[in-house]
Amino acid sequence: MTTAKSLPPPCCTGMFRNFECRRLTTSHSSPPEKLGFSMLCRINAARSCHSRRNLILLYDRSRSNFLKPIKAKKDSESSCTDNGAAFSGIQLRQMSNVGNSTNILWHECPIQKRDRQQLLQQKGCVIWLTGLSGSGKSTLACALSQSLHSRGKLSYILDGDNIRHGLNRDLSFRAEDRSENIRRIGEVAKLFADAGVICITSLISPYQKDRDACRALLPEGDFIEVFIDVPLHVCEARDPKGLYKLARAGKIKGFTGIDDPYEPPCGCETTFILQIVLQQKGGDCKSPKDMAELVVSYLEKIGHLQA
Amino acid sequence: MTTAKSLPPPCCTGMFRNFECRRLTTSHSSPPEKLGFSMLCRINAARSCHSRRNLILLYDRSRSNFLKPIKAKKDSESSCTDNGAAFSGIQLRQMSNVGNSTNILWHECPIQKRDRQQLLQQKGCVIWLTGLSGSGKSTLACALSQSLHSRGKLSYILDGDNIRHGLNRDLSFRAEDRSENIRRIGEVAKLFADAGVICITSLISPYQKDRDACRALLPEGDFIEVFIDVPLHVCEARDPKGLYKLARAGKIKGFTGIDDPYEPPCGCETTFILQIVLQQKGGDCKSPKDMAELVVSYLEKIGHLQA
Repeated sequence: MTTAKSLPPPCCTGMFRNFECRRLTTSHSSPPEKLGFSMLCRINAARSCHSRRNLILLYDRSRSNFLKPIKAKKDSESSCTDNGAAFSGIQLRQMSNVGNSTNILWHECPIQKRDRQQLLQQKGCVIWLTGLSGSGKSTLACALSQSLHSRGKLSYILDGDNIRHGLNRDLSFRAEDRSENIRRIGEVAKLFADAGVICITSLISPYQKDRDACRALLPEGDFIEVFIDVPLHVCEARDPKGLYKLARAGKIKGFTGIDDPYEPPCGCETTFILQIVLQQKGGDCKSPKDMAELVVSYLEKIGHLQA
Repeated sequence: MTTAKSLPPPCCTGMFRNFECRRLTTSHSSPPEKLGFSMLCRINAARSCHSRRNLILLYDRSRSNFLKPIKAKKDSESSCTDNGAAFSGIQLRQMSNVGNSTNILWHECPIQKRDRQQLLQQKGCVIWLTGLSGSGKSTLACALSQSLHSRGKLSYILDGDNIRHGLNRDLSFRAEDRSENIRRIGEVAKLFADAGVICITSLISPYQKDRDACRALLPEGDFIEVFIDVPLHVCEARDPKGLYKLARAGKIKGFTGIDDPYEPPCGCETTFILQIVLQQKGGDCKSPKDMAELVVSYLEKIGHLQA
């Protein structure tokens, strides 16, 4: 029975000389001036380089095993008796109370994230797309999914609006419900990443604290924040859902960019953070397909498109 | 761009002559008398046989394409302009209000369930394990996951207790919270199935209406209910979490089997229902591995282990 946990991603220091590394400002009133695209990759170089060595040692031998059946771990050979301990056959941890749930027990399964990643030949992670309404998050999510699929990689999109048709249908757009909406999507994204899937989330997620909380759910490096940096006036001119018009008319309250702030990504220096900024300004903006290719090439270079 | 929806599973009439087909009774006081294992497969034969023909026509040509990269669908070729409609590049449906969420829009992605299934060479579905506490749901879930992994199939377990450590940490064990716990897990399981994953859920889910509500979320035949039919006295003797003891001492209220009922699966005749009953009684009970093999062989025979 393997007990290996998911590994942090390999080092990307020096791998992105073709992309500009820059710091985002916290102030929304002073947006970055660079036209076109730039990528921000802020990492703990020492730690990630160490991880890269581990990765090479651990994974090289499995590279030829491309989505072929993998021999299951040895069964626990537990007999089916009426003895609970013998029957359980799984690692049991202590009973605990979590949030409002009492007397619950964490069940570990012999098949873990690493096994699923070997099966899929990719690393489960979360690509967290954030930006104003109309910035093109859903469009980029689709283009990303297409690009990954064309490479034989399994991805899945958690679109904010779509999830409100199901899991989050009970939530409104009040501030506390918007936070809960993001929390739940973060938790579900974590499950998908643990399943080995490249999970693409697409929701405005305007507040840094909410995004940071979702990042904190995942192993370091498994949460990649992609900020689609499109000026408000461009998003408002697009207004694909007609929501800016309603917000300007006062028919929607607390709309991001109009009467509620958007806090652009700004990682904490003490944390291992992967971020990409896709700037879409002026006449140099790129197509969704081109943006997707940039993100995919980034994933490839940090080793997420192999186990 | 494909718009094909997931197909119902093929016919299994006549395929399970080696398994006993029987009807479950609604009354918990009159449990099925058959010792050992039995499987219940209640289907709409005419419909499923028709589906099977379609499946053969549609999927035979892709069988050799085992987890190799699949060419992505043609891009929408939308240019990145400031024109919202041109930029969106996705199918947009009408704005709608769902539950407490207003002005939301369903986003369709060109990469759909069928594409992911072809990539994985399996059908995304939900294996819903239900039974008393201590009946062996988590153990069977792990054994199932091992067995599927050994065949190169991607599965993921949503364990009730584990999900209460994250997504459902805000829920208690009050009746309404237990229902919400099941609803959310049903919704997440639906997402996993849509991702092409064989999603195994493991939670008591004692009420028929809650299980039926989860079944209703999925396309017909994508929800396979597996009832682990273990007598209460056996579960209580196992008592792996010590909860029966607490319930008997009155320290836990509303505990299934003690002071709250368990309603065994009993499908509605008008719905396309797949059910398996794994009876564990007397000296003829099977090991978790053997039970898992029965479920996997069932999945194989109804065509869920290929695209």
